[in-house]
Amino acid sequence: MTSVRSLFANAQGSAIRELAGLAQEPDMISLAGGMPDPALLPLEAIREAYARALSSDDRALLQYGPTDGLPACKQAVSALLRDILGPQEPADWVMTSGSQQAIDLVARTLLDPGDAVVVEDHAYPAALQAFRFCEARIAGLACDEQGLLPEALREFAATRRVRAIYLVPTFGNPTGVLMGAERRLALLRAAADAQAVVIEDDPYRSLAFEDAAALPPTLHQLEREHRTGADVVYLTSFSKTVAPALRVGAVLASPTLRRAVVLAKQAADIHSGTLDQGVLAQLLGSAWLPAHLATLRTHYAAKGLALHAALQAHVGDLMTWQAPRGGMFIWGTLRNGAAGIADWKPIFRRHGVLFVPGREFSACGVDAGHLRLSFANPAIPRLAEGAARLSRVLREALAA
Amino acid sequence: MTSVRSLFANAQGSAIRELAGLAQEPDMISLAGGMPDPALLPLEAIREAYARALSSDDRALLQYGPTDGLPACKQAVSALLRDILGPQEPADWVMTSGSQQAIDLVARTLLDPGDAVVVEDHAYPAALQAFRFCEARIAGLACDEQGLLPEALREFAATRRVRAIYLVPTFGNPTGVLMGAERRLALLRAAADAQAVVIEDDPYRSLAFEDAAALPPTLHQLEREHRTGADVVYLTSFSKTVAPALRVGAVLASPTLRRAVVLAKQAADIHSGTLDQGVLAQLLGSAWLPAHLATLRTHYAAKGLALHAALQAHVGDLMTWQAPRGGMFIWGTLRNGAAGIADWKPIFRRHGVLFVPGREFSACGVDAGHLRLSFANPAIPRLAEGAARLSRVLREALAA
Repeated sequence: MTSVRSLFANAQGSAIRELAGLAQEPDMISLAGGMPDPALLPLEAIREAYARALSSDDRALLQYGPTDGLPACKQAVSALLRDILGPQEPADWVMTSGSQQAIDLVARTLLDPGDAVVVEDHAYPAALQAFRFCEARIAGLACDEQGLLPEALREFAATRRVRAIYLVPTFGNPTGVLMGAERRLALLRAAADAQAVVIEDDPYRSLAFEDAAALPPTLHQLEREHRTGADVVYLTSFSKTVAPALRVGAVLASPTLRRAVVLAKQAADIHSGTLDQGVLAQLLGSAWLPAHLATLRTHYAAKGLALHAALQAHVGDLMTWQAPRGGMFIWGTLRNGAAGIADWKPIFRRHGVLFVPGREFSACGVDAGHLRLSFANPAIPRLAEGAARLSRVLREALAA
Repeated sequence: MTSVRSLFANAQGSAIRELAGLAQEPDMISLAGGMPDPALLPLEAIREAYARALSSDDRALLQYGPTDGLPACKQAVSALLRDILGPQEPADWVMTSGSQQAIDLVARTLLDPGDAVVVEDHAYPAALQAFRFCEARIAGLACDEQGLLPEALREFAATRRVRAIYLVPTFGNPTGVLMGAERRLALLRAAADAQAVVIEDDPYRSLAFEDAAALPPTLHQLEREHRTGADVVYLTSFSKTVAPALRVGAVLASPTLRRAVVLAKQAADIHSGTLDQGVLAQLLGSAWLPAHLATLRTHYAAKGLALHAALQAHVGDLMTWQAPRGGMFIWGTLRNGAAGIADWKPIFRRHGVLFVPGREFSACGVDAGHLRLSFANPAIPRLAEGAARLSRVLREALAA
């Protein structure tokens, strides 16, 4: 029997990935994974784009491609994001196999074993896992309703070297928090003082329920305007706006880091799917995209508000949360402390609803007072029913 | 300016990837990268498979998928490889983003810093790079015309713990060598005695010029029959037989290693492309595949023999090589020692031909007596012209 590194032998798998299996059971309502609503996956546009990409006799899209990405796709990403990032060039980008790979490659090229990474007290589990597999020390710092507190970062950095700070500042995962412009700037200044690299993970920005142009600037853009000296690495994803299946994300980084990421990617998977990148380039550059994004925003807003209203009706006495303003998540805080359940699965099965327990987002794996609810996947009538079932789950759990 | 880990700051990029840029220059003949012949990339079949995959209203192929792979794709891979691997189940496989990712994930989950990995004295550079990025110590051991010498492995393992042995036993990269059945078994016995994991990388097996059924068994199958106690991890690729663009490979591993690979993959890219896997599942399960593989074998045989004949006509006085029997490569050994050229690019440009210098395949980066020639990509008349140009390159280099 093969023995593997203790780092992996002792690691836990992703609870969210496990819950994805449970979500397939009959009549289960999943408020767990951040999976797009299938009805909002643009099948027609994708079908046409593949047909077009494969319609010429040029087989370049079937061949090996450059490690840093298909030029047309880098061009499309750079042009699309000019509004929120300011001037940057296609050459500043590396295309990755989803933004998850960007997290992993940046982590692998930045983090030596023992390096400290700062995250919010509840953070995206697959980022935490990538940092753990680099043997980083992960510090989850205090947050308020705008996310990470700059004072907490300054206090931590006063006694320890911080190598990187990982943030989802726009409709964060799991909290859904939108960090304001002043908070962003204060965090950039604290990061610059700490000489820590800021990893800005930004997969949800296009899912603002209201005017996307009124959102606070990206950390990347703020840094460009204010020159605090912080080093911002910007990650984007097309899994929420086009389709997860394509596995295409992108990272904008300074030349030194970009070179390292390309070297790591040569060894990791040579390059991301050529055809998928060709299709994405078409879609990002087409007039179809703005209309599609508007549809997404309208529908996800309706779903977010439907879950919000249903929660008010069913579990308002049990937990608090902020009304969602974008993204895919509502973060619930139990009013009367903790639901000390070791294994939620039997309760989920009994009542036919799933959510992700708070501990999955905690750097130290301890939390019994929160839950993440995603409104992205189920249809609206199922969200209402899901809230009713959630009420039964929580009442059983809190009584236990 | 971001500083990156010294491991990456000091690493060299892939020379083969760099040469891919040079290959785009006008009238350049590339005998460098192992890129499939574009004329043999099955555009029609792929076009139809994407159209079919996207023809129903079921959007499951656009959604997030399981980390270990799309069930239909695992099923197709398992069924396809029953002849060369013996009984195994879809559940024994993990689908990866090309077989390169399988190399990387197996390396990351097996190798602690300082662990020793044994390879042939000339080996696939992107595997070497993956091992380097795990901070493994790489030992390139002596080979003959059948590949790695079991005595060399036994001698090395007598004084050092060997964690893994990486082999491409069937039409190896770069040497094109086909390891016979007895050699395979002797290596398995030596690996079992050393308690080293055997990583069998097998991307070229379907490109045997003659009867594929007459090839020596895979290491995996031999181990099943002879029970030497060696732990064999089997890697397959569809980049050479279907298309590199899809980035789908697969790894067959024991349960402990497989679990670790899945955990590493959750953090590395969540899962490989869902649609690409759906398309591959269709193609692997269709009656089209055997006819396509027969076409590939016929055409690559013609190309391999064309390059072989042209080399005899143009550079027979300068180097020796084995006539190719499969795969994509001819490995040349210069008759009169070394071509001590630090930078081949100006010479390549001057004469309009590219190959990969031997040092790129050496674990220690030192080799001036070999070159790898790929016959896969250029059309046959260009292979003949390439050999004529190669003669001029080598005569200039050897005179220098």
